[in-house]
Parts: sequence; structure tokens; C-alpha cells
Amino acid sequence: MPFLALLRHGQSQWNLENRFTGWVDVDLTAEGEAQARRSGELLAQSGVPFDKLFTSVQTRAIRTGNLALDKAGLAWLPVERSWRLNERHYGALTGLDKAETAAKHGEAQVKVWRRSYDTPPPPLEAGGAFDLSKDRRYAGVEVPQTESLKLTLERVLPYWNEKVAPDLQAGKNLIIAAHGNSLRAIVKHLFNVPDDQIVGVEMPTGNPLLIELDRDLRPKSARYLDAARAEKLPP
Amino acid sequence: MPFLALLRHGQSQWNLENRFTGWVDVDLTAEGEAQARRSGELLAQSGVPFDKLFTSVQTRAIRTGNLALDKAGLAWLPVERSWRLNERHYGALTGLDKAETAAKHGEAQVKVWRRSYDTPPPPLEAGGAFDLSKDRRYAGVEVPQTESLKLTLERVLPYWNEKVAPDLQAGKNLIIAAHGNSLRAIVKHLFNVPDDQIVGVEMPTGNPLLIELDRDLRPKSARYLDAARAEKLPP
Repeated sequence: MPFLALLRHGQSQWNLENRFTGWVDVDLTAEGEAQARRSGELLAQSGVPFDKLFTSVQTRAIRTGNLALDKAGLAWLPVERSWRLNERHYGALTGLDKAETAAKHGEAQVKVWRRSYDTPPPPLEAGGAFDLSKDRRYAGVEVPQTESLKLTLERVLPYWNEKVAPDLQAGKNLIIAAHGNSLRAIVKHLFNVPDDQIVGVEMPTGNPLLIELDRDLRPKSARYLDAARAEKLPP
Repeated sequence: MPFLALLRHGQSQWNLENRFTGWVDVDLTAEGEAQARRSGELLAQSGVPFDKLFTSVQTRAIRTGNLALDKAGLAWLPVERSWRLNERHYGALTGLDKAETAAKHGEAQVKVWRRSYDTPPPPLEAGGAFDLSKDRRYAGVEVPQTESLKLTLERVLPYWNEKVAPDLQAGKNLIIAAHGNSLRAIVKHLFNVPDDQIVGVEMPTGNPLLIELDRDLRPKSARYLDAARAEKLPP
């Protein structure tokens, strides 16, 4: 007690096409929906009496959370959303597929952007198709134009401290439905993962990571709910 | 400004079977899901920039809200849920179909319970299959054992005053996804419908009622979003 389940959204249309998505609001594929429902079954089977769901403001994470709760008989849980749980913003890489990115920037540079903790890609061109700074959803938010994993963590952490941690300290069992990199940021924080190791941590989809925390919110144990899929736990 | 959309959930399994449902957590049928999606299209076409969704804690209203928001491209809206927006509690009638109810209590008595503003049916038997007083969802809530429409209104109104009205007064455009009788209670309050007329007000399903309010939250105008379905407006 308390328990925290980290739930990464399943396959989206752009995952399928291998394009950098970031903040673009791409929906789940049918496969992604099935992964969300499967996660809901796993959450129900865990026997943990969950109290609340947190999500980003991106459709693929929200729908993952909704489908999982529906399946778990927990549609009634209170829900809180924040842009601070959004995926990492990929800047000028947004919308490009792997081949396009390599052709434009070179393989070596792309590897740096993908694998470095603190090097953000070039900023997104303002006013382009993927510029969300005028989106009503982000009214009052200073929408980033690019992010490293470090910058992602720096905007996730205030939300963790202000909203998530107090609920956990009050003994609530929480689910966070979010993205590869916003969940990585939380894992880095909780497990104290060094900068040079965190990019190697891959959150699986459709397989919630259930973490039991102590009163000081240090992990006491962690396991993937689908034990048959031998995923690597955070270091 | 502001706008309030009242959205009654679509067909549930027990609507289909003509059974008194009340607080029992019955899910939507496929037809009910389609009605929810259609409502989402209508909400999007209205052009109103909605800011927030309120729901009961019952699955059929929650899923109606979720499906409508998904369809409207508004999955990201903040959501707040409360048991105070639940359907009227039908007491000892819960679970009975029309024929069973008439056989057990007589047609005349059933008509009184259905049509009277302030006569609740007999209380639900404690500890029976439909007793929700020990349901985790209602922890800390004094679950009613039966309700008239009057009693329903009396528990909806505090939530309206504390949570909904302040958002409207702040200029927010709201959607409430709820039930025939909790929405009737809101309509009675907003339109000042007399006790003897409110039971005649039928909220349609799959056709949101869009109400424009003035600064004192008095209705300036009201219309059903699917104008082709000539529904009767509140008196």
C-alpha cells in the first residue's frame, strides 16, 4: 500500500506507420483498443482496489484509460487529466517517419536525438500543421516546441508532486494512463534511474506496471501484470 | 453564453427489457452506444466550445459521455462524476419488469409511483441483490433505499449549486451526461416547472437539449440539437 499502475497506451495509427508522434493527437488502432481492454482485464485480476485514474490530454491515452476501466468494471473512477502527462514533444521530427528523418538529418544525428537524455531535436516550425500553440485544449499552457527526455521529466515532475504524490500519500491506489516518455519520466523519478540508463528503459504496451510504494513513495516491489510476457523491470 | 447541454443516456439492457433500473449499474446496448455517438456528432455540429463534462457514477451515463466526447473530438475535456447525478432509486420496484410490477402491486398503484412527484415506492429490501449500500463506489454515501422524483431533486440540487452553477457562472459551457430523472430534476429547477407538470416532461435519448443561460442562470433559449425529431421542450 499504496499501489500505482503505469499504463502505456497501445498502438496508434502513427506507431503503425513508424512516425514521430509526440503531441499530435493520433487515435488508437483496433489493435491499440484491444491492448487497452487487455490491460483492463489485467488490472481487474490484480485485485487492487483502484481509486482514481490520471491521464494526459491526448486521445490515445484517454481512450486507453477509458477502455481499460470499462473492461475492469471501474468506469465510475474519478479521472484527472493534465497536459503534463503528454508524450515527449519531438519538435521538428514530428510527423516524419524513420526513413524521412534519416534522409533529412542523417542516421547518426537521429540516434543522438532518440538516445540522448538531454538533447532535444530542433524546434517545430511555428504555424505549421503540427503547431498546437493555438489549440483550445492548451489554452493557458506554454506549448513546448521541442523536448528532450530531460525537459519532459521537468514538466511531468511538478504534476507528480502536486497532484499524484499527495493522493498516494493519502493511501489511494492510482492508475496513470499515459505515454512512453511521460511514464519513463515517472519511472526515472521513482526508481532513481541514472540519466544514461533511462533511455534504455522501454515501457511495454498492454501490460501495466504495478508498483507498490512505501509511505515515502519508494518502490517496495514492481511487477508487470502480464507475467507471461517477460518484460524487463526498471533498473 | 453560457451553454448547458443535457444528454440522457441511450438504451440500456434493462430499458430494452422494460425493467425498473434505478441505481443498478446496467450497461448500454449496441443501440445505446450508437445513440451516444450520434449525440456526439450533434454536440460537435452545435459549434459550442464545450469546457467540461459532468456525469453520474453509473456506467451507462459515463459511457454515453465518453462515446459522445470521442465522436466530438473532445475526449480531452475535464470530467467530474457524482452519485448525485444518478438515476432515481426505484426502491422495491428495482429489477421488476412492467408485468411483474403490475401483478405484484396492481396497475393503479404502479401508476401512482410512476406519475406522482413525491410518492416513493416501498424501500428496497436491505441485503438483497440490488442493495448497493456496501458497494465501494458509494463509500461515504448514504445510499437511498427508495426515491420519489422530489427526493431525487433534493439530492441533485446541492451538487448543482456547489459544482455546476459556479462553472456556468464563470462562463464555462457544460455537458451533463445523466439519466431521465436526474435531468428532469435539473429541468424542473431551471425552467421552474410545477410539481404536477414535471412528470410529464420526457427527456429524449440521443438528442441533447442545449440551453443557453443568462448571468443569473435563467434559460434564454432551449433547443434539441436534432431538430428533425420534433421533441417537446420543457414548459
